[in-house]
Amino acid sequence: MSAAPSKRPLPQPVQALAAIPGPEVAARAARLRIRAGEHAGQTAGMAPGIVQGNVAILPADLAGDFLRFCHANPKPCPLLAATQPGDPRVPTLGDGIDLRTDVPRYRVWQDGVLVEEPTDIRDHWRDDLVGFVIGCSFSFEEALVADGLRLRHVEQGRNVSMYRTSIACNTAGRFAGPMVVSMRPFKPSDAIRAIQVTTRFPSVHGAPVHFGDPAQIGIMDIARPDYGDPVEILPGEVPVFWACGVTPQAVVAAVKPPFCITHAPGAMLITDLRNASLAVL
Amino acid sequence: MSAAPSKRPLPQPVQALAAIPGPEVAARAARLRIRAGEHAGQTAGMAPGIVQGNVAILPADLAGDFLRFCHANPKPCPLLAATQPGDPRVPTLGDGIDLRTDVPRYRVWQDGVLVEEPTDIRDHWRDDLVGFVIGCSFSFEEALVADGLRLRHVEQGRNVSMYRTSIACNTAGRFAGPMVVSMRPFKPSDAIRAIQVTTRFPSVHGAPVHFGDPAQIGIMDIARPDYGDPVEILPGEVPVFWACGVTPQAVVAAVKPPFCITHAPGAMLITDLRNASLAVL
Repeated sequence: MSAAPSKRPLPQPVQALAAIPGPEVAARAARLRIRAGEHAGQTAGMAPGIVQGNVAILPADLAGDFLRFCHANPKPCPLLAATQPGDPRVPTLGDGIDLRTDVPRYRVWQDGVLVEEPTDIRDHWRDDLVGFVIGCSFSFEEALVADGLRLRHVEQGRNVSMYRTSIACNTAGRFAGPMVVSMRPFKPSDAIRAIQVTTRFPSVHGAPVHFGDPAQIGIMDIARPDYGDPVEILPGEVPVFWACGVTPQAVVAAVKPPFCITHAPGAMLITDLRNASLAVL
Repeated sequence: MSAAPSKRPLPQPVQALAAIPGPEVAARAARLRIRAGEHAGQTAGMAPGIVQGNVAILPADLAGDFLRFCHANPKPCPLLAATQPGDPRVPTLGDGIDLRTDVPRYRVWQDGVLVEEPTDIRDHWRDDLVGFVIGCSFSFEEALVADGLRLRHVEQGRNVSMYRTSIACNTAGRFAGPMVVSMRPFKPSDAIRAIQVTTRFPSVHGAPVHFGDPAQIGIMDIARPDYGDPVEILPGEVPVFWACGVTPQAVVAAVKPPFCITHAPGAMLITDLRNASLAVL
């Protein structure tokens, strides 16, 4: 049984809290600007506190295998949502999200060839398309910084270093390939803390998959990442490697499906979910 | 309001569970054997599932500083219980525990000199003595093994390797000194899992304090531990270092108090607490 709502006014401090707009307000405003074509670039730093997602859109005849691939490889491919075929809405991630308009810039692929980079895919939409939204390291990086840890690539204004590894993903139908990892350097004591913090976020890659010797996971030259920028590792630091959301993109690219759409690198879908809501504790 | 107890018989599977003796039964039996002088050696492997503790017994005029030392250094000195002055009971760790008889073998120290190794200290007991019981790595090692991780020193029947480090403990009164750590070698992916598992057990040393390069914490020769036995580190493995309960013993030894009593190495106090009850989640 629920009590009738109290008519008494809230105490002043609670009133003050209620007056602070939540991060969802900024998220929706950012998404509307993106939808209107007013922002067509990277989303890093937009809508602080809010989950951003990698996007892949595939025809239904490939979508089942891709869904199985994500399920079989949850660390590189943490699936936040999959749409109904033909339906561009993602209600579990935010009221009113429309995958046809709400990503700042898309990449349209035909037979593995990049054919267009539009800011809107309403003209490309089909009744058989299934949209996938996959967790992104922005969420756990925010938690690391909030904990007092320093991210060198952020401080140096670079993209994180990413590498193809010798760790094979679990295969699902036509989808197969190596795990891609991102690397962040830390002192060992900070690395231990970073492992603890990211363990709380299994739906955005979770704990690292490796630290230390890059060759153990097939990385032959740490100074030459396969994606992103080189990031310096100082004396006394070790490289720490997390499974990376570039993995599903690389796997889709390798399959060369007749038709698919992804977000352009760094231009992510801004959701209504708070990063904090992804923490398992 | 509590309901009246049901008169209905328990379902059969619950009856079966209720009939299984808990690990506390074996713990109490082991403690009674120790009290009777029937077991005077190491306690490793006795009373599986049960917390064992390091013991230090100090005169009241030093006990305040030692308590502050433990509080200021919770990773090497996780205090499970401290007694009332003169009272050998530790009711929070087990009904009927008597610190004068329930440790298999003691070490009695005078001015820092080991003078006796009795199995019973009733003749040494004084009204001003305060007993301290400090968490021990046996508890988290059990959790590591239960998780499927392998402990080389256990498999090789050796004592864990322990080292004095360049990490200074926080000083409290006369108590000061370096942190002692224990080392277990793991592959990096297993080390990440070991960090997660031991994070759940902050009252028995918790997460590691370091991994990788021993020199970073002042260990100059990993093959020559300061306490315990050398343990092999295989190619592809890294040494992982946890704060160790030998720290408070080494600190007490350095102070050379006029009188104190400790457990003999490896001959721990068996409590009634389950290791699982120390997990924070």
